[in-house]
Amino acid sequence: MLSKAKIKYINSLQQKKYRQKEQLFIVEGEKIIAEVLSQDVFKVHSIYATDIWLNKNMTFAAQYTGILTTISVAELKKISTLKTPNQVLVLLEIPKGNISSNNPDQSFNLVLENIQDPGNMGTIIRIADWFGVENIFCSKGCVDCYNPKVIQATMGSFLRVPIQYTDLEVLFQKHTELPIYGAVLGGTNLQQSRLKTPSFLLIGNEGKGLSEATQQLITEGITIPKFGGAESLNAAVATGILCAAFRQ
Amino acid sequence: MLSKAKIKYINSLQQKKYRQKEQLFIVEGEKIIAEVLSQDVFKVHSIYATDIWLNKNMTFAAQYTGILTTISVAELKKISTLKTPNQVLVLLEIPKGNISSNNPDQSFNLVLENIQDPGNMGTIIRIADWFGVENIFCSKGCVDCYNPKVIQATMGSFLRVPIQYTDLEVLFQKHTELPIYGAVLGGTNLQQSRLKTPSFLLIGNEGKGLSEATQQLITEGITIPKFGGAESLNAAVATGILCAAFRQ
Repeated sequence: MLSKAKIKYINSLQQKKYRQKEQLFIVEGEKIIAEVLSQDVFKVHSIYATDIWLNKNMTFAAQYTGILTTISVAELKKISTLKTPNQVLVLLEIPKGNISSNNPDQSFNLVLENIQDPGNMGTIIRIADWFGVENIFCSKGCVDCYNPKVIQATMGSFLRVPIQYTDLEVLFQKHTELPIYGAVLGGTNLQQSRLKTPSFLLIGNEGKGLSEATQQLITEGITIPKFGGAESLNAAVATGILCAAFRQ
Repeated sequence: MLSKAKIKYINSLQQKKYRQKEQLFIVEGEKIIAEVLSQDVFKVHSIYATDIWLNKNMTFAAQYTGILTTISVAELKKISTLKTPNQVLVLLEIPKGNISSNNPDQSFNLVLENIQDPGNMGTIIRIADWFGVENIFCSKGCVDCYNPKVIQATMGSFLRVPIQYTDLEVLFQKHTELPIYGAVLGGTNLQQSRLKTPSFLLIGNEGKGLSEATQQLITEGITIPKFGGAESLNAAVATGILCAAFRQ
């Protein structure tokens, strides 16, 4: 059974300010949660599951008795962020300080400036996971990576890629030896560029691209050549194409 | 002024069955509509615009007096499919028969099997436009390309890429000389494959990939190499990476 207060509390975590206050975020869906319960980066705070999920996941359930609440499908609907709720919802703790990240000087680092759309952010995290990106650095203007829509769009990849929010200029000042590639219009043709890692790959905002200030910081501007009429590519698609080129 | 009946009529076009009955679809937003009004593939059926739009677009407005209705922002909200309606909504006629397409035997043809998500479909059309794809062929199981969410996600690219719905097996039988590349798991590594055009590039459903039956039809299975933990890439992202590889 879920009290009205508990429903309100869980719903409040859809907003960044309450996630920050409570240091908790929502994860949903059987598939992602099977992964969530077999990792140890994020501590499980509580589990809300239907009988259907419990019957299928007795082993997991046994480990979490103290923090597991059985709920009805109707109750799940009240706390879910999904159109079609999927048997189980988990609250995870936001790690204190930075998640243990890889040394940028030895890594393929993806850097995001003011990515706003949660779907794009989640898809980019999934791309980073596919291509073995070792760190994601986000400007403070990026959407919160613990937004439920971001988490869902990662398809579980948020469990594997360390993500940090930071001042980009300070970041680059700490690693002056690394090349900083930036996705821009009118840069070096991707096919002619010699991409190498360790390095930073910088992706800008969906509508505006990289800010003027940040463009000053890049060592090489890269452009995906265009053969048709579209004005631009979606930010996540561009990230995918560039990450693939780095791994070539 | 908009009557209740007119509001209901326009709203009904959010559903495929009414779009097919009326042979009309919705396009919204100042930027796309500026492009819409300067092309002649799709005939303009009617325009619903606020005073703000009218004042900025007197030249266009003069050409369309008979089919232009001035509406308030509140009225626009009632007919819009967007969270933040944007000054103008246009109904376009769905072309009779197939849109004049390019000869597949001389084209880079993108073929979609059961792409379900409107956002993905729109993003794929935008990618196709960027990379100069000359035809898009969709299986009957794909989401309708005149769905308002698809149209919005194309960012205007639906105006430039010919899209047809067809039986894929019949399509391939008509063009037996062309290679059929398919995005699959466990195929030729993209980096080792020799992609050439004219050809077909086949992309499958978001969750399931290409169907068994369709996999039988491909001449070469292509796989984007993976370096990390993600189970898969988003269908639109995979399409972008493969199109970029074709144009290399």
